Amino acid sequence: ADQLAMQAARERQAQLTKPPGALGQLEEISVRLAGVFRTPKPHPRGVAVVVAAGDHGVAAEGVSAFPQTVTPAMVGNFLLSTPAGAGGAAVNAIARSLGAQVYVLDAGVAAELPDHPQLIRAAARRGTRNLRLESAMTREETLSLIAAGASVARQAIGAGADVLIPGEMGIANTTPASALSAKLLGLNPAAVTGRGTGVDDSTLAHKVEVIRDALARRGSQLSDPLGVLADLGGYEIAAMLGMMLQAAALKRAIIVDGFVEGSAALIGVALAPALRDYLFAAGLCAEIGHRAQLDHLKLTPMFDLGLRLGEGTGGVLAAPFLLAAAATLREMLTFEEAGVPGG
Amino acid sequence: ADQLAMQAARERQAQLTKPPGALGQLEEISVRLAGVFRTPKPHPRGVAVVVAAGDHGVAAEGVSAFPQTVTPAMVGNFLLSTPAGAGGAAVNAIARSLGAQVYVLDAGVAAELPDHPQLIRAAARRGTRNLRLESAMTREETLSLIAAGASVARQAIGAGADVLIPGEMGIANTTPASALSAKLLGLNPAAVTGRGTGVDDSTLAHKVEVIRDALARRGSQLSDPLGVLADLGGYEIAAMLGMMLQAAALKRAIIVDGFVEGSAALIGVALAPALRDYLFAAGLCAEIGHRAQLDHLKLTPMFDLGLRLGEGTGGVLAAPFLLAAAATLREMLTFEEAGVPGG
Repeated sequence: ADQLAMQAARERQAQLTKPPGALGQLEEISVRLAGVFRTPKPHPRGVAVVVAAGDHGVAAEGVSAFPQTVTPAMVGNFLLSTPAGAGGAAVNAIARSLGAQVYVLDAGVAAELPDHPQLIRAAARRGTRNLRLESAMTREETLSLIAAGASVARQAIGAGADVLIPGEMGIANTTPASALSAKLLGLNPAAVTGRGTGVDDSTLAHKVEVIRDALARRGSQLSDPLGVLADLGGYEIAAMLGMMLQAAALKRAIIVDGFVEGSAALIGVALAPALRDYLFAAGLCAEIGHRAQLDHLKLTPMFDLGLRLGEGTGGVLAAPFLLAAAATLREMLTFEEAGVPGG
Repeated sequence: ADQLAMQAARERQAQLTKPPGALGQLEEISVRLAGVFRTPKPHPRGVAVVVAAGDHGVAAEGVSAFPQTVTPAMVGNFLLSTPAGAGGAAVNAIARSLGAQVYVLDAGVAAELPDHPQLIRAAARRGTRNLRLESAMTREETLSLIAAGASVARQAIGAGADVLIPGEMGIANTTPASALSAKLLGLNPAAVTGRGTGVDDSTLAHKVEVIRDALARRGSQLSDPLGVLADLGGYEIAAMLGMMLQAAALKRAIIVDGFVEGSAALIGVALAPALRDYLFAAGLCAEIGHRAQLDHLKLTPMFDLGLRLGEGTGGVLAAPFLLAAAATLREMLTFEEAGVPGG
């Protein structure tokens, strides 16, 4: 990030027509946006969410409340023609109401998906292997999905996105996200394993055991973040990592939505610590491991609505905060400019 | 609110393509919007914020960090022509970035304001009387400002606003807001008196004493909410009360921004308990008494960004959450409609 632009933004915030600090966290967000966009008067415009869908071999362990067939059905739902426009899922409705673009990526769904002009295909395999028993992905598959995520990020940015929101859908994907978080943060799996779509107590206990077994395989080393990602999965997490790395390289703001997105961010900052400068945390997600992720990323969530859906929905809801924060820096007058006493 | 529409909305939320409850607080917001708009598929469109400005005789007690001349200067700032559009204050910049309309009301500023085509004039007096010593407003002034607020609400709603945000600006106005909150909630003034624009410890202690003295005058009785409002002030609070009552009568959603707005809402629900159905709390404001207000109003704030500016800024930031919540009810498909298993 551009430290000079951030310093200029900080000085400008102190002169704007309001009591010092009265815009709270919005002021820090505006300063960070100045760093991302390399100007004390940032003007982010387009917002895009990319929903990457993938399946997980570990679903065979019964770690989710929903059957794996939900993943391809939801991809269909993201693309379905409805009276209101394309897509009948939460992310579609929320993005339409807030003016965000939606991209849908098949990162590795375990089904033959019907052709659709808006479906971006990047599957390397129809679902990962079972991380309890073996490495979920090969290194080649991992790199392929990172490249696919980077490609869709370039597409969205080329179409005008200044704020990119990696989103995901994939039955059982909180299991690899918890495994990645436990591994990367050095925490007990029970501390970062939650109920996902809503499993009961005994399934939650089983899910923790599955993750313990996966980590006990010792299939990867912390010094090799991409190896850890390949080891534990999944494809949509690799795709989101690619989006983040590409968006940061193109100097765009990235909103990190929930817990699965957070696991991609953890790999990202392990690979490239400077990525952190481009990340903005949306809301605090209801998954118990999310707080530990955000603490490690040194990110402050903007709200706590108890969301636990994924799809990038929280990120889309947070985007107006970024646009508004940038607008205060860009469009508010200083005490001197406005002729207001007391500045 | 329409209980049947709310029940239908609740049932619809349970069938939409997401795990039950996965949209967290957004689901309850959507159900309440169904009640306000009397349909399980609410479609709020326009968003308007009305900034009511007023001055306060109690400013003479030295309860604010800013001089009273800031109030008329900020009214000028709300209206000033800038390269980005009308208005150089935070509410202008934030509203522009999020597509909300801004209305500016002179509810009783202690200065001769220059003519401006966008300034709505409703002052009954140039600033209230000093509530420490006497009743801040007469009953006639109070009713006049309530009517003025109702009138601007009708204007905004007539121009397309479905979501109305009462906002305020007025040096020293957290003093009457704290006095009203202490009186209406039966709390010690110290528990609901904060730093406003940022006063130091000794000024804060003095502010509490001023409020104690005002309440010790026993100038009004709880059984007469309008009498309490007249007694403690101020004009912009009366105007916001009028906006709320009118917007509720016209069945529109009202976002209650911060602590001063909250004090208007307390008078409102004391007068008309059904008003509460139309109120949505924006963020938790940094003023210490805000939580007690929201608890009494039984409202859940949507975020906690540490805002303490007023002007309706937090309300404008919260508006996208309402639009998005309504969109989920209106535009998401059910499991059956989308052909997704597991519903």
